[in-house]
Amino acid sequence: MTTMGFVLYDYWRSSAAYRVRIALNLKGLSYASRPVHLVRDGGEQHSADYQAINPSQLVPSLLDGERVVTQSLAIMEYLDETHPEPALLPADARGRARVRALAMTVSSDAHPIGNLRVLQYLQSTFNADELQRADWSRHWIAVSFTALETMLANNAATGRYCHGDVPGMADACLVPQFYNALRWKLSLEPYPTLQRIYDECSALEAFRRAAPEAQPDAPAAAPA
Amino acid sequence: MTTMGFVLYDYWRSSAAYRVRIALNLKGLSYASRPVHLVRDGGEQHSADYQAINPSQLVPSLLDGERVVTQSLAIMEYLDETHPEPALLPADARGRARVRALAMTVSSDAHPIGNLRVLQYLQSTFNADELQRADWSRHWIAVSFTALETMLANNAATGRYCHGDVPGMADACLVPQFYNALRWKLSLEPYPTLQRIYDECSALEAFRRAAPEAQPDAPAAAPA
Repeated sequence: MTTMGFVLYDYWRSSAAYRVRIALNLKGLSYASRPVHLVRDGGEQHSADYQAINPSQLVPSLLDGERVVTQSLAIMEYLDETHPEPALLPADARGRARVRALAMTVSSDAHPIGNLRVLQYLQSTFNADELQRADWSRHWIAVSFTALETMLANNAATGRYCHGDVPGMADACLVPQFYNALRWKLSLEPYPTLQRIYDECSALEAFRRAAPEAQPDAPAAAPA
Repeated sequence: MTTMGFVLYDYWRSSAAYRVRIALNLKGLSYASRPVHLVRDGGEQHSADYQAINPSQLVPSLLDGERVVTQSLAIMEYLDETHPEPALLPADARGRARVRALAMTVSSDAHPIGNLRVLQYLQSTFNADELQRADWSRHWIAVSFTALETMLANNAATGRYCHGDVPGMADACLVPQFYNALRWKLSLEPYPTLQRIYDECSALEAFRRAAPEAQPDAPAAAPA
């Protein structure tokens, strides 16, 4: 722990960064935002300066004083270990496994496949046009949302939020992916439980302040 | 904890399942292997019976008695919490964050994009032929390996293995991805540290017994 505070290398529309913003807000931890523009000038995440912080050339990266932590889920686990209250994970091993599995169904099964660099590569390699890239994104979100809806609906462990009545790591992953689904105009009717939890979370200040449009680097009028 | 033992829904060539086999072996936990054939008959992971266990229709799934745990990294965390020794993660928050970030650089940044279902979808949507699918796989492995090599080389925390001199969660992710890289014939010269750690791990019984070709469902003569 340090008195120097947190610095978050961030991008308003990155859903991995959005997760960490939610987590920091839920814990009441203040941080300085350092935007990394993922598109301008070929992507500032590829600069030598940023690569020295994060060799994966992805956001987010969290500085805790001098210490660099990368990977959004590793950052959330780190925050939970160093600032335990309020917890992002439940106390019991079974509950922790459930929350991590829900979180990873977003962070491993959906998000990486629809990430910016994959869409850019689809365009350069297969000449995928805008419509095809949108179809691709929707397809993989739908695959993971179908799984998540089953995992969450009619499960006694699901409460007001993904796990019980306290928002945590699974919610911090679900909400940014739901934002992506809205952005890509995925039909959300098949996912009433996800919609309900998204609405519950959206009523919370910690989630609202983390929203893309509320970030300092968001354009004044965000593109559709 | 239970006396009923572990059952692993497994597939010999799944690198996510391979990670969990390594983890179970490192901890000296015996398990019954229940192979799920990912290709035959359109993929047994899509059967109603398997979907009832794992709505994501992916392997692995671990049964701990009656309890189902999914997502390979969530399974490893669960094993570390319920069977702490030997540990897959270091004791300090900083080290744990580093190991998780290394593990997720494989499990989130590389593996999902080259996964079977993505290759199948590339084929059906963009008519990607075998060569293009191989290029695609190599590309994303190279992207993550470049990051991993930087994260591991010349870092004081790297030892005989990814983190110190005890094999753990990061190694359990690296080795199966390295196996994939060999399978796709990625040139490995740029990654001497990954190669060295792969070789170190390959000398260990826990890793050797987890190898795809050592599994009960591996074909007698594995296809190239």
